[in-house]
Amino acid sequence: MLDGAPVVLPTSFGRDGDTLYLHGSSGAASLLAAAAGTPVCVTVTRMDGVVYARSVFSHSVNYASAVIHGTARELTDPGDKCHALRVLVEHLAPGSWDHARGPTRREIAATCVLALPLDEASLKVRTGPPGDTDEPAGPVWAGVLPLTSGWGTPQPCPRVPAGMGAPPHVTGRCGSPASRFK
Amino acid sequence: MLDGAPVVLPTSFGRDGDTLYLHGSSGAASLLAAAAGTPVCVTVTRMDGVVYARSVFSHSVNYASAVIHGTARELTDPGDKCHALRVLVEHLAPGSWDHARGPTRREIAATCVLALPLDEASLKVRTGPPGDTDEPAGPVWAGVLPLTSGWGTPQPCPRVPAGMGAPPHVTGRCGSPASRFK
Repeated sequence: MLDGAPVVLPTSFGRDGDTLYLHGSSGAASLLAAAAGTPVCVTVTRMDGVVYARSVFSHSVNYASAVIHGTARELTDPGDKCHALRVLVEHLAPGSWDHARGPTRREIAATCVLALPLDEASLKVRTGPPGDTDEPAGPVWAGVLPLTSGWGTPQPCPRVPAGMGAPPHVTGRCGSPASRFK
Repeated sequence: MLDGAPVVLPTSFGRDGDTLYLHGSSGAASLLAAAAGTPVCVTVTRMDGVVYARSVFSHSVNYASAVIHGTARELTDPGDKCHALRVLVEHLAPGSWDHARGPTRREIAATCVLALPLDEASLKVRTGPPGDTDEPAGPVWAGVLPLTSGWGTPQPCPRVPAGMGAPPHVTGRCGSPASRFK
């Protein structure tokens, strides 16, 4: 809630055990509000496919989602923040933490990091064919059209020196399915 | 907001001009609260890739997002609801509205449909390489690992009669990239 209205923003996350980490600019209004004790809800969804049914009413989506409710705590200790940032970076880009330049004290100070306990969460999963068992089996086709996701071919930054290939922690993901849940 | 806490739920949507449609069971607490005038925020995000930078600080995500704020209106006229449901179904499963059995009066009555005007929305897009132009070009590789999505092979419902193939409006999507924005 910001100024009396709900605000839902896309964000990356990292998980360490029963703690979910979120981060952003130390000036971000949404993070400041959460750090001040405004209750938050974090939702992660993976869409797995479209469910075609014999009736439009029974059309659906196969998916998995996690909805987490709670109050976040802002991390202030630089060591705690650094650990959380490592978890966040390694979730988004496994292998990058030990490969790229680490954070400076100024960068850590410029980053707001929130820790949200995973005490109150609800998980939902829908799989399988449509549930329209009361409809005749024909003449309408029914089934699932899977939605797939995966990593493509790395696109080097124009400033990358000629002949420098992407490192194994990047190329190793190419062509593999993207798992957005961990 | 439900009972003083924010609630963020995954949902499908449909758009017709400057109106966004949402739907669900007529008993869903989140829809009833929105129909009663609780301000809502609807966010749609497409993740396009992971941005690998020379520093962990400049790691980022390429994405497009729409954040819509407003107050939703519940549709009560069955004709209006039927139009909105058509928009919703055709967004999720183009071609299904004229192929599958249409909704009954009872099914329409059992469905809550909300219309949200697209008057107040913010769009954000990040594309391209990392913005770490103050870092030396080497020795750390930098660039973008694209995240792709697409439709797989249709999985027929076990009740589909032997020899009945998926119709063209389903097979026509196979192998094509999934565009989750419209």
